[in-house]
Amino acid sequence: MEQLNLLTGDEQRRRIASVADALRQHNIQAALICDNANLYYLTGRVFSGYIAVTADGDALWFVRRPNHLEGDAIHYIRKPEQISELCAAEGINPAGMTVGFELSTLNVSDFRRLVKALGPAATTDITPVMRQARSVKSPVETKLLRISGVKQEECYRRVPSLYRPGMTDIQFQIEIERALRLNGCLGQFRISGSSMELFMANILSGDNADNPTPYDFAMGGAGIDPSLPIGANGSVITPGHTVMVDANGNFTGYMTDMTRTFRLGDISAVAELAHRCSIDICEAVSSAARPGVKASELYELAASMARDASLEDYFMGHHQKAGFVGHGVGIEINEAPVLAPRSKDIIAEGNVFALEPKFVIPGSGAVGIENTYVVLRDRTECLTNAPVDILPL
Amino acid sequence: MEQLNLLTGDEQRRRIASVADALRQHNIQAALICDNANLYYLTGRVFSGYIAVTADGDALWFVRRPNHLEGDAIHYIRKPEQISELCAAEGINPAGMTVGFELSTLNVSDFRRLVKALGPAATTDITPVMRQARSVKSPVETKLLRISGVKQEECYRRVPSLYRPGMTDIQFQIEIERALRLNGCLGQFRISGSSMELFMANILSGDNADNPTPYDFAMGGAGIDPSLPIGANGSVITPGHTVMVDANGNFTGYMTDMTRTFRLGDISAVAELAHRCSIDICEAVSSAARPGVKASELYELAASMARDASLEDYFMGHHQKAGFVGHGVGIEINEAPVLAPRSKDIIAEGNVFALEPKFVIPGSGAVGIENTYVVLRDRTECLTNAPVDILPL
Repeated sequence: MEQLNLLTGDEQRRRIASVADALRQHNIQAALICDNANLYYLTGRVFSGYIAVTADGDALWFVRRPNHLEGDAIHYIRKPEQISELCAAEGINPAGMTVGFELSTLNVSDFRRLVKALGPAATTDITPVMRQARSVKSPVETKLLRISGVKQEECYRRVPSLYRPGMTDIQFQIEIERALRLNGCLGQFRISGSSMELFMANILSGDNADNPTPYDFAMGGAGIDPSLPIGANGSVITPGHTVMVDANGNFTGYMTDMTRTFRLGDISAVAELAHRCSIDICEAVSSAARPGVKASELYELAASMARDASLEDYFMGHHQKAGFVGHGVGIEINEAPVLAPRSKDIIAEGNVFALEPKFVIPGSGAVGIENTYVVLRDRTECLTNAPVDILPL
Repeated sequence: MEQLNLLTGDEQRRRIASVADALRQHNIQAALICDNANLYYLTGRVFSGYIAVTADGDALWFVRRPNHLEGDAIHYIRKPEQISELCAAEGINPAGMTVGFELSTLNVSDFRRLVKALGPAATTDITPVMRQARSVKSPVETKLLRISGVKQEECYRRVPSLYRPGMTDIQFQIEIERALRLNGCLGQFRISGSSMELFMANILSGDNADNPTPYDFAMGGAGIDPSLPIGANGSVITPGHTVMVDANGNFTGYMTDMTRTFRLGDISAVAELAHRCSIDICEAVSSAARPGVKASELYELAASMARDASLEDYFMGHHQKAGFVGHGVGIEINEAPVLAPRSKDIIAEGNVFALEPKFVIPGSGAVGIENTYVVLRDRTECLTNAPVDILPL
């Protein structure tokens, strides 16, 4: 047997309390949680089952699999229909409650089954509650992100040594994947929602960077198969082109996000200029990202710097553009806050966000950098500290 | 610009017709499809958007991204609220229809938004319709599966050459991952539903095979991090133990599923016996898998052979057991038919399924094989033809 809860008691109480606080603020009496990312947030492990959290801060754990977990208030179940009775035995009666569910990730069939099983007075969406709670990282979470940042950085420093003349973008990517994995990268790339897909890394060489994708990532690429149309497309890396490396930073369950640009031979002056602009934007936006600042203002600051440099045509893509310049990261790659024109997020102490002002320059490829920052009380700390200049391959 | 439809006209018509047939059978007037796997099935590519299919066999294509697609009946949209008006312009009025949605994958928020936008007379679940349509593979799909099988087999034949003395299971896995990727593996491992997670491969050495996981896969393993508790756990591969290799077969958008077992030094007689039993089960069950046979009977045949060999204690896991012995494969790893005790699936010509009678032997590790078979009119064809014996590392 093994303890279900892998967090320290204090840390778990803090996380449950942050969810309970948000429930009270929204006048929700209880939440039933089953999304893997949220289960991991509240326990430090992924399991198959549910966590019920009440606005009073009580928590019950319903586990289907694995079969070797133990701890306070854990109940093994075979099916969700057992939850109601087990709640009643603990003095919790969903029939009188507004119960929140993860409506942005829970599928309709499972939701209906849970509602029928629990019979709550009303239901509501706790996606915003969980999103809010998870967007403010604790020192324990920040520590895991720092470790991911250091390990990711170690790999990025080795990237030029992995290149061999004549390589295709995908061959280069495979060596980067291997270096990441040998350094402890878990591989798994958690994205909230089911429509976004990416395998390990987006490596963009030359004009492939301008191929549009179905996905809402910052950059594109045709991919090597129409079943996964993003990233490296099998083209040989050729002189005069850039190679943008945006590779998986999940070393701890919490992932950092970092991009660096490399080049084969000399690249155009406008590509060099745009890369410098990206570095400048990262410095300006990360300096401006203080608690209380609107995330939309940070986007506008980035976009205005691109405009001032007459680079707006290339900013965040050329033929197809992304609508954001940064995004929260943690257990998943698309957390709060979102740095986008219509974002309602306000920067808070403990936020961790990736900032990726990138440019697609026709004839050269993608340029720019991406860093992950944690918002501290009086400054931001960069977690991804590989060299920022365009290094030669 | 690029054609949205990457299938031949005939092939696309056949797939749309198979969905329309199923809609008529279920008395559903139209379906709105947006799951990546289903979009890929109906077009040969993943895009961001929707496909409306009517029971009459008409299809409309609503595309959000990428921005360079063209073709008959394609409409670019920014938001789903535009679909209703565009349907009306084509003479399709959802207000008078029962419209089916993918309720087992569509999240509640998106579903509610779509229902509000379309205002159908009634809604229903088309998950079973799509599951049924996709379970019968066309010759075009079977060809893609054959290619995946050959490429996966090429990699499996190289597995012993990738081992180096002193390797941990995860180090061995990384070299297998690289070999797969260099041979064209896309990496992406599509699973229907959001709770199942696995990165590239499940490599199980020795007693780690008996560690239970949260996931509903055939085998377990502790994994290297509690955020992804499955598979290799970093233990050194030691003499007397088996190494079971179950690695990603997605080379074409359609994936085969194959497992082979290797050993370091000699393994126990019971492990050898159980492996032979697995091979025998594969032969017997694949021979019995004729059109019209119940999938539950195939499970029972496998389980009875394990019982007859007095191996039931180890069959499909030891401390935690899986509840199935086979599953349909194709675009996703968990398609129909399911070979399980209470499965209602009936084997049909064109079904493609993976059969994985596996055993976990304490002190030795996991043994057994897995093959992918296509059901032809009068026989089954094995798509995964690497040697079946336990080869030494």
